[in-house]
Amino acid sequence: MSALKPTSGTDIDRMVRRLAEEAKAAAAVLALASTAAKNKALTEAAAAVRRRSAEILGANRRDLEAAEAKGLSAAFRDRLALDGKRVEAIARGLEEVAAQPDPIGTELARWTRPNGLDIARIRVPLGVIGIIFESRPNVTADAGGLCLKSGNAAILRGGSESLHSARAIHAALADGLRVAGLPAESIQLIPTTDRAAVGALLKLDDLLDVIVPRGGRALIERVAAESRIPVLKHLDGICHTYVDGAADLDMARKIVLNAKMRRTGICGATETLLVDRRAAKTHLNALIDDLIAAGCELRGDAETRALDPRVKEARPEDWDTEYLDAILAVRVVDGVEEAIDHIARHGSKHTEAIVTEDSAAAERFLSAVDAGIVMVNASTQFADGGEFGMGAEIGISTGKLHARGPVGAEQLTSIKYVVRGTGQVRP
Amino acid sequence: MSALKPTSGTDIDRMVRRLAEEAKAAAAVLALASTAAKNKALTEAAAAVRRRSAEILGANRRDLEAAEAKGLSAAFRDRLALDGKRVEAIARGLEEVAAQPDPIGTELARWTRPNGLDIARIRVPLGVIGIIFESRPNVTADAGGLCLKSGNAAILRGGSESLHSARAIHAALADGLRVAGLPAESIQLIPTTDRAAVGALLKLDDLLDVIVPRGGRALIERVAAESRIPVLKHLDGICHTYVDGAADLDMARKIVLNAKMRRTGICGATETLLVDRRAAKTHLNALIDDLIAAGCELRGDAETRALDPRVKEARPEDWDTEYLDAILAVRVVDGVEEAIDHIARHGSKHTEAIVTEDSAAAERFLSAVDAGIVMVNASTQFADGGEFGMGAEIGISTGKLHARGPVGAEQLTSIKYVVRGTGQVRP
Repeated sequence: MSALKPTSGTDIDRMVRRLAEEAKAAAAVLALASTAAKNKALTEAAAAVRRRSAEILGANRRDLEAAEAKGLSAAFRDRLALDGKRVEAIARGLEEVAAQPDPIGTELARWTRPNGLDIARIRVPLGVIGIIFESRPNVTADAGGLCLKSGNAAILRGGSESLHSARAIHAALADGLRVAGLPAESIQLIPTTDRAAVGALLKLDDLLDVIVPRGGRALIERVAAESRIPVLKHLDGICHTYVDGAADLDMARKIVLNAKMRRTGICGATETLLVDRRAAKTHLNALIDDLIAAGCELRGDAETRALDPRVKEARPEDWDTEYLDAILAVRVVDGVEEAIDHIARHGSKHTEAIVTEDSAAAERFLSAVDAGIVMVNASTQFADGGEFGMGAEIGISTGKLHARGPVGAEQLTSIKYVVRGTGQVRP
Repeated sequence: MSALKPTSGTDIDRMVRRLAEEAKAAAAVLALASTAAKNKALTEAAAAVRRRSAEILGANRRDLEAAEAKGLSAAFRDRLALDGKRVEAIARGLEEVAAQPDPIGTELARWTRPNGLDIARIRVPLGVIGIIFESRPNVTADAGGLCLKSGNAAILRGGSESLHSARAIHAALADGLRVAGLPAESIQLIPTTDRAAVGALLKLDDLLDVIVPRGGRALIERVAAESRIPVLKHLDGICHTYVDGAADLDMARKIVLNAKMRRTGICGATETLLVDRRAAKTHLNALIDDLIAAGCELRGDAETRALDPRVKEARPEDWDTEYLDAILAVRVVDGVEEAIDHIARHGSKHTEAIVTEDSAAAERFLSAVDAGIVMVNASTQFADGGEFGMGAEIGISTGKLHARGPVGAEQLTSIKYVVRGTGQVRP
């Protein structure tokens, strides 16, 4: 038993608690750090990522060899793999976060009461954010950088398969913090692959302010069930595109193909196509042709299958499935109201789109559909903080409390009321 | 077993689920209701409260008789009791909520991307809010009214001792909704005193969007531990007033006396007085005299007791106690830094105040203290949505996620991104 690889739950509990205590102390410094110091830490971290490139690639090679020995899939190893271009993207990502506006200290509102009390609502950091993620090594830099920008200390727990890569990237982040005169403990990485570390982290409700799980449904459900710390959930999405009877055919074809097939593995990909019965005869065959030509499997209701025998039969569970693959469920509905109703039953409140030239139908859809993002005449694949102009994001929140939609630096904050008086007492 | 008094857990589960399903259907209507309709429901509910005054007072008499028979304390019965004046205050409270601005539909931000996508961030209701509270009957109207104003459906579960009063008030709210043409199910009251109803409510994570527990620590901890629904916590407060060496003596005396003694049972009452060592000789004796003359018991550290033998000895737990009574813990500290440190260890992140004429000390305190409300030269008893000019409040949130500080109608909302395109697809 070496100190770096504790094997008992108690040792791990102790190690994780110590990391969190250090992070909490760092958070108090970071909350008051200047914009210049935080940005210097980010740009110096980017420089350190470039300088340490060979070391990061070497560490990544060790992770990849272990993944191969374990027989992990090619797709998994692709997500894990780094090369010179991906390392450069990590460095550039940190510089982009540095270039964003600093959300902290912003005065969101200020007013004076009749008794002379001056009240200001200002933006402050959340404190210490625990982030549990799976195997993409770049998340170490992305999540650590966003937390730093927003004045929060971070405790990162990455997938065990990427631990060597994460440690090498983390060393570069610590370099940046030190050069900027900020505590290196502002971004902590849990240096063990032991799964007990997740449980240990979830217990620390006296030290952590928020937990952000990034990964599959099983991880998020485990965290939500076990954690006594508030959770900011970043779920995947069952997104719909509804082609209205008044949709322009060319626009509908372009949007549906992009929404499903541009990248099938992202949370903003459309998983179900709803087509207005009025457009079934005129639009649906062309949509089916495009999708099948692009290699998409279609699973449709009886009306859709009647139009094209290549469409397979959709089973009830298809309406509730996030394929993250080249598969699309297709249903004919009776206008915008039935589309809204279908989405209320089967949507995941992520991103929902309507294609139509009828502005009344568009406004009805935009107001009645309950989701973080609602769109008219655009591809659901735009559901992304970068595409929204918000800079980097830690994910898309499908919860309704706190942040909803893309979560960037500004969303990783809280507020504080500052009251300035001249001796007022309450009558 | 009558339908109104289910006695098995299963019957109660079924009843509570049915109420929540009705509330969810009502929430979809309420989310799109006009400001005029919501305000009409509120003012008509106020009229119905006045019209049903005799009925409400009769129901309250039944609750009071039962409370007396059970031997509940006079203080408890006072919180439970209604009279003509209190009924009028309930009606006026509903009218005041009607007069507030409608937060729903407000465009919080809007921008256009280089590709022409038009993105707006707008305020939307949370959906269905469950509110679990103790025995003040007016909460039925206050909480129901705030939820309605913010376009949310409410499920109310009040203390069993006030059930008759709550049902009579609830009938008036339903009158108002009906006259305004809104679903009467927008505000549901769980009509049973069975404690299993709380557990049944906490299970409904498919129907409820938020749970707001209002009451003592035991209730809030039970809800936080049991609920899979996100919880907006409204805790009580361990608030501090720090008298700096540079404080004006007269101002400090006025503020400290008010902060502790104006009303001792509210969450914004000061529970610990911290005095700068530089002011101990000049200010502390006068502060002690004022407080003791007003009937306050003092529990101090050794330095405080050395100044006045009437001060009792503070034990370690006193620094972590919310007295909600005429008792104050007193400690001499070494300037603003030790005050900040004491508050970081013992505060509850509710409301913290400094009294000083030194603007550097004030700004240091305001920025370094982590609390929902930080104040300079004012009484902590101003911690209240009404005093902040925010209208009615459902409580003060001490959490950092979502609402922090006073929670009024605007804080019972979420956001939604509305994206308007002209056929854009993502490259």
